[in-house]
Amino acid sequence: MAKTNWSRRHILSLVDLISNEYDIILQTAASFREILSGRTKKVPALQGKVVANLFFEPSTRTRSSFELAAKRLSADILNFSPGTSSLTKGETILDTAKTYLAMGADIMVIRHKQAGVPQAIATEMDLKKTKVSVLNAGDGQHEHPSQALLDLYTICTLLDRDRPRLELLEGKKIAIVGDILHSRVARSNIWSLTEAGAEVHLAGPPTLLPKMFLDLIKNDRKGKLLLHWEVEPALRAADFVMTLRLQKERMSQHLLPSLREYHQYYGITRDRLKLCQPHVKILHPGPVNRGVEISSDLMDDPEFSLISQQVTSGVAVRMALLYLIGSSN
Amino acid sequence: MAKTNWSRRHILSLVDLISNEYDIILQTAASFREILSGRTKKVPALQGKVVANLFFEPSTRTRSSFELAAKRLSADILNFSPGTSSLTKGETILDTAKTYLAMGADIMVIRHKQAGVPQAIATEMDLKKTKVSVLNAGDGQHEHPSQALLDLYTICTLLDRDRPRLELLEGKKIAIVGDILHSRVARSNIWSLTEAGAEVHLAGPPTLLPKMFLDLIKNDRKGKLLLHWEVEPALRAADFVMTLRLQKERMSQHLLPSLREYHQYYGITRDRLKLCQPHVKILHPGPVNRGVEISSDLMDDPEFSLISQQVTSGVAVRMALLYLIGSSN
Amino acid sequence: MAKTNWSRRHILSLVDLISNEYDIILQTAASFREILSGRTKKVPALQGKVVANLFFEPSTRTRSSFELAAKRLSADILNFSPGTSSLTKGETILDTAKTYLAMGADIMVIRHKQAGVPQAIATEMDLKKTKVSVLNAGDGQHEHPSQALLDLYTICTLLDRDRPRLELLEGKKIAIVGDILHSRVARSNIWSLTEAGAEVHLAGPPTLLPKMFLDLIKNDRKGKLLLHWEVEPALRAADFVMTLRLQKERMSQHLLPSLREYHQYYGITRDRLKLCQPHVKILHPGPVNRGVEISSDLMDDPEFSLISQQVTSGVAVRMALLYLIGSSN
Repeated sequence: MAKTNWSRRHILSLVDLISNEYDIILQTAASFREILSGRTKKVPALQGKVVANLFFEPSTRTRSSFELAAKRLSADILNFSPGTSSLTKGETILDTAKTYLAMGADIMVIRHKQAGVPQAIATEMDLKKTKVSVLNAGDGQHEHPSQALLDLYTICTLLDRDRPRLELLEGKKIAIVGDILHSRVARSNIWSLTEAGAEVHLAGPPTLLPKMFLDLIKNDRKGKLLLHWEVEPALRAADFVMTLRLQKERMSQHLLPSLREYHQYYGITRDRLKLCQPHVKILHPGPVNRGVEISSDLMDDPEFSLISQQVTSGVAVRMALLYLIGSSN
Repeated sequence: MAKTNWSRRHILSLVDLISNEYDIILQTAASFREILSGRTKKVPALQGKVVANLFFEPSTRTRSSFELAAKRLSADILNFSPGTSSLTKGETILDTAKTYLAMGADIMVIRHKQAGVPQAIATEMDLKKTKVSVLNAGDGQHEHPSQALLDLYTICTLLDRDRPRLELLEGKKIAIVGDILHSRVARSNIWSLTEAGAEVHLAGPPTLLPKMFLDLIKNDRKGKLLLHWEVEPALRAADFVMTLRLQKERMSQHLLPSLREYHQYYGITRDRLKLCQPHVKILHPGPVNRGVEISSDLMDDPEFSLISQQVTSGVAVRMALLYLIGSSN
Repeated sequence: MAKTNWSRRHILSLVDLISNEYDIILQTAASFREILSGRTKKVPALQGKVVANLFFEPSTRTRSSFELAAKRLSADILNFSPGTSSLTKGETILDTAKTYLAMGADIMVIRHKQAGVPQAIATEMDLKKTKVSVLNAGDGQHEHPSQALLDLYTICTLLDRDRPRLELLEGKKIAIVGDILHSRVARSNIWSLTEAGAEVHLAGPPTLLPKMFLDLIKNDRKGKLLLHWEVEPALRAADFVMTLRLQKERMSQHLLPSLREYHQYYGITRDRLKLCQPHVKILHPGPVNRGVEISSDLMDDPEFSLISQQVTSGVAVRMALLYLIGSSN
């Protein structure tokens, strides 16, 4: 497994990741995907290393994916569970991180409901001149890099199974539909897709898609970002449709009237899919509210849905990330 | 470890398991028991395989037993914890299972408070032409196959340590005492014991042992099934007594007056044990309400109690089950 | 790894540990510390052995430390979580321990909010003639041996990195400051430090430091124990200051007026530190209430604070303990 040119210690955000780095991740993930489909399935790459899963915001799905990725790399894993932890005893998050550092953690995978926590911990770790790596596993409404990278990998391997790379997305039209405002997945995807030179169309109700999103992207990026308050112009001739999870609590916050109405106006259905390219594929970060973001039968249709491929890609991509940041420190 | 003739992908119920299959399980468990009592204790049989413990109904004891069994076989384990999971985010159980499938699970060990969930997931997995195996770790009041199989193994190794096999139970009298109605353990045991040709006597208060249980067994089974609302006729000349856990909530449901009264009429005591064969042994799936299902001193008496052997057998039997279904896929 | 002269099966308390035993632990930990700082980090010492973490009182920090120690020794680990366990189903603690014994546990690491539970389980295990080892990971206000041993190791390696041993503490002045009354850490430390021949000065408000503590130590111990209701005399010329965690609930129990007032009278600050030896070091078992037991900047000052070394030592010391009791049984 070549590791030429990888120099980042942490993966906190995709905002400044460059084309070459994306390609290293995609190729490394492809190599691991190869291993996973063989008989061995485990590599000793991180033997003796400790991966601490600090999920201050609980999550079974993402934690399991990271856990399996770390196990495939032969790392030892420590799971931190906030419910029974010292946090309830008044310890600061930074002190928790320092404790796991002192125990011997080489990589910290951090999820927190507040934006910026993984960055703050990484900054502190660097100040202390430690070699520990921090991987953002979702921070508030800020970013969720590993999710966007597995989306990217899923799409790129579909376009070229053997040689997934960023340039494959150049000029592709990709619709991101739903609650953009609250989505860290959307934000991370906007960075990767525009870096790839794709045309990204955001679509959602005005309450969940404020105009300020257009200011995100400066002219220096290869791709374009467009914004629609109706879903149809986003879907028209789209190559890929990324749907986002709708949090039910948005209704009590009066940001949308009802799930049923949401589905009526923004849900992805077979009818609406006719607007897209014939080869269109649908992604969703999961878990899906069946019949809300996407009609239930469409979600299960392997001709259109990439949802299960995304989960499978997740393990390979997270192996790649842990490997790249973990085997250098 | 020979695996001749094993062809089942899933273990969901014992209702249609045949004699030869029971014997393969018993012999495989015996081989593993051998290994466990040696110094090595680990075998690479499931190296690289992923066992997902999907315990939608929480359980420490059964989960630990499966977890240790999987570790002894060198498998990687993913634990799903319902409390912090996507289920609370509205995901369906089937979607959760599909997520673990996509992550790479080879075996899913499933416990759910609703009968039929493991079967439903297995059916869906087969429909999707996957090779994943499903093992029912307890579903509602339906079945708990691994518990009945460890009971069977515990009894058979007592009768012939080196060559445990189903025929050893032919003609034996086995009493199952307690809350039959709500017991998945009782149901699974009825299937295995009658297939073995044993004489199974159910005993419990009428509210917890409806007559319909007699209709369970058709004439095609080798063993007999009898039903008693008093405990004495069931115990008379019994070779083995299986006690069942009494849920305290049955009282608030007015299904029985009090734990004390239950113990008075159905509890296994030294006095009552005199009705049985002198060599009688007592089983209980645990956890025991001391002084309710069984008197406290009797539970701790190694001359009569098989309770701790059952737990020990559990690891070997679950290793056998995971091995049989897991090394073929 | 020599294991000459170690004969204890359990580690339940430090009250009767003798000098030679402390030295074996310190030297074994030092060997493991060596391994941990190398590239391999894992040793096969406990391969095939099962360590059951029975944390009836939840704890992330201590459990993680034991878990990592066990993984470094290649043991298999079973985590018992009281929330989802049979305890809520009415099982006794002893029955839970017996269940894990029957599953195959070789070592039980036990934490319980009630004093004496680990001892009671160990006694029962010995009565049953089992070979299982019990390690007390904190019981009520009784003892927390592994914490005191890691404190000891941290101090001794500071005094002689290559050859940590008990005699290094002879004549040293050590202040233990805070809520002595409720602290199992303080009690365990009193035993180890007085055995080492240190001069131990306890300091805290009268409500949290009753006079009876003076009766703890009989004349047969090498060290001395002194008691102060003001912090200054304890700090004067001290070589080490051990601060203890203050539980916030002590306020609602009217044992102290406020955290702020506590800090004013007993908090360790730069000013107060001038009373100590110039080379003084501060310890804290964590988690720290910043600005209560110790001023926040002092806690982060590597010139004075040993807090992160304590956490690091913890893994090595726990490896030593698991190894010493686990490789003999």
